[in-house]
Amino acid sequence: MLAELISVGTELLMGEIVDSNAAFIAQELKNRGVFIHWKTTVGDNLTRLQEAISRALTRADLVILGGGLGPTDDDLTREAILATIGETPVIDTVYLETLTKWFQSRGRSFPQANTKQAWVSKSTQALPNPVGTAPGWFTTVPNTGKIIVAMPGPPREMKKMFLEQLLPRLSLPQNGFHYTTFRTVGIGESHLAERLGALTQGSNPSIGTYARRDGVHVRVASSAATLIEAEALAAPTELEVRKALSGFIYGTDEQTLPGVILELLRSKGQTLSVIESITGGLIADVLTDTAGSSDAFQASAVAYSNTAKRHFGVSESTLEQHGAISAQTTRALALEAKTRFGSSWALAATGAADSSLGNTMPAGTLFVSIAKPDGSVVDAALTVAGDRRTMKERAAFFALGALWRELVKT
Amino acid sequence: MLAELISVGTELLMGEIVDSNAAFIAQELKNRGVFIHWKTTVGDNLTRLQEAISRALTRADLVILGGGLGPTDDDLTREAILATIGETPVIDTVYLETLTKWFQSRGRSFPQANTKQAWVSKSTQALPNPVGTAPGWFTTVPNTGKIIVAMPGPPREMKKMFLEQLLPRLSLPQNGFHYTTFRTVGIGESHLAERLGALTQGSNPSIGTYARRDGVHVRVASSAATLIEAEALAAPTELEVRKALSGFIYGTDEQTLPGVILELLRSKGQTLSVIESITGGLIADVLTDTAGSSDAFQASAVAYSNTAKRHFGVSESTLEQHGAISAQTTRALALEAKTRFGSSWALAATGAADSSLGNTMPAGTLFVSIAKPDGSVVDAALTVAGDRRTMKERAAFFALGALWRELVKT
Repeated sequence: MLAELISVGTELLMGEIVDSNAAFIAQELKNRGVFIHWKTTVGDNLTRLQEAISRALTRADLVILGGGLGPTDDDLTREAILATIGETPVIDTVYLETLTKWFQSRGRSFPQANTKQAWVSKSTQALPNPVGTAPGWFTTVPNTGKIIVAMPGPPREMKKMFLEQLLPRLSLPQNGFHYTTFRTVGIGESHLAERLGALTQGSNPSIGTYARRDGVHVRVASSAATLIEAEALAAPTELEVRKALSGFIYGTDEQTLPGVILELLRSKGQTLSVIESITGGLIADVLTDTAGSSDAFQASAVAYSNTAKRHFGVSESTLEQHGAISAQTTRALALEAKTRFGSSWALAATGAADSSLGNTMPAGTLFVSIAKPDGSVVDAALTVAGDRRTMKERAAFFALGALWRELVKT
Repeated sequence: MLAELISVGTELLMGEIVDSNAAFIAQELKNRGVFIHWKTTVGDNLTRLQEAISRALTRADLVILGGGLGPTDDDLTREAILATIGETPVIDTVYLETLTKWFQSRGRSFPQANTKQAWVSKSTQALPNPVGTAPGWFTTVPNTGKIIVAMPGPPREMKKMFLEQLLPRLSLPQNGFHYTTFRTVGIGESHLAERLGALTQGSNPSIGTYARRDGVHVRVASSAATLIEAEALAAPTELEVRKALSGFIYGTDEQTLPGVILELLRSKGQTLSVIESITGGLIADVLTDTAGSSDAFQASAVAYSNTAKRHFGVSESTLEQHGAISAQTTRALALEAKTRFGSSWALAATGAADSSLGNTMPAGTLFVSIAKPDGSVVDAALTVAGDRRTMKERAAFFALGALWRELVKT
């Protein structure tokens, strides 16, 4: 079964609000074997909206519209559906009363404009909306039997209506879809693709690679008549992916790199402290995005200025001889963090996030040091590309990746 | 002139990543009198991509594609454009060399798959991409003279290419559109709307309010035959907005709250240090997103655990009597930051980002303290709502807002 999405509204078209509904609908439908090939965003314009619906009906069995169900003259979804199927509106008097009461119960008089929210038509059922004024529409197109559905734009209203009203009416088969996302760190998308080689050519299971700020994600997807069969179908490919990317996969699905690191530390009864320069607080920020991080994340400092570096254990001679951005300074910061905060592990990172400010090293230079529980220090270095923010993000996840690699070794 | 957008990628279609490029492009084109009626999102499928381009060419003069310019078999934008205009690819040997060097300079061998990023064609120019490997494409459709543009998906690459490469090639008329965005902190969207009152009813200038992670933005937009006329038209409204929101506006347009704070400090020859608990590094992170922040941002620490709080000057008796999340602990951290790091100002924040972990205070509790150059301390408190990440963001910007208010007073 094929579905198609139409998002309605000039605000959406102009990108003034983000269209988060499509993600929810696409995912829920995919899990039930309904695929989406097209999504169209169109403004509040009757002619174009009608054109979009007509075209979608030539390509899909189910057309889902989002938005344009409000009471104003700009809300044209109902009008466009009626024009497409050639029907006229009928007022659902029972719903009109519900609507009138809804306003009364809030101490407001019923605005006449809202009358059209009580419209239905010969081929159209209203979908109740317990959390808003606009009911949805479920229209069976005469002759073809194809379905046009219209739901309100606010995500909370749409989700409830989708799950409670729309899905039961569609009677879709149980799903036989299986997904695993392998999350990697320390390898770029092209080199990862080379390692995967012919594996990426398959269509069921299929493999997709996605560059994210925390590293490249590799998703294996399979479909079969049942979920168990889909899992069995994916298993050999997942094993191949694990082998091909051995040493780079830190987790699967919803696991995050900070989360995996904190869990490793917790399982060992160990703690971590951090002194960051180039990443300017971002390493601490992503670590503390994980609930309960204070169990293992002892403390951190941002030693951005040279004054701060001196305060955090970098000697004048190290700064003079090697500079603020150097393996030596980074090592001194890692050792200081371990000692000062009394943690089992310590991580430090220095680097240049831009080239314009008297940095001694070129932009993108990055040094990472990891002080280990046995007192030894491991260093890593990299050149990162991108703008200031991207460099900070790449540096933070490279540093955490290096730490993760040491943690899994011990 | 009409333009049409095509966003390419199964990830976008499935809503796995948010399409933020469209907003930027739509806004920039609108400022130059180019309007968008349709946006189509299509997966990584050659037939459908080609269909989308062909259809867009029947409706618009300028078709802008985003995404699908990577090196893998899934990246089909170039292939679809060539199929649409009936041309074959030619390798741009100069760019191929640039690309090879790009990889070499990063100590990596050139992946053969990337060769297609050096393609051009008879009617196609490459658009340089100084911040990534994928150049854009600027294609003049034979016979019709319509334009097809393809730009990479990553927003930072797209924006640079749009402004520096695409706009100069389009030679659009000067605009008569004027915008000012007032950036506020410390006031919610509804209260702000109450203060603006009838001002928001106007259509030219129009006023839009947008809740952002750093506070509510208020945009005044006007249009007229010339830019100067549009500015003159907006001026009285802008003055009204400034009056209505006096004390809440920290900057306009591209100014950021961290940037404004650092600039205020720099202008006074003063410095700042921070000790953060609830915000877990985020305050430092947003401060260091501003280039040159090390001039004024002396140092910071994340005192997430009680061990760390003790290390950073909170006495055992304060922790026992008042708790880790309290005005007293926060004040102690602010004073310690000022003394320890020798900065003119210090900011501290404690709070509960969740309720499940033995926190003594309910989730959303937030305490902020500001140690001032004269040694006095100013406190602020708030209850923030939202998930863990949202609370961290609201807490960080509330704290920075409180600091900003003190800074402008002195």
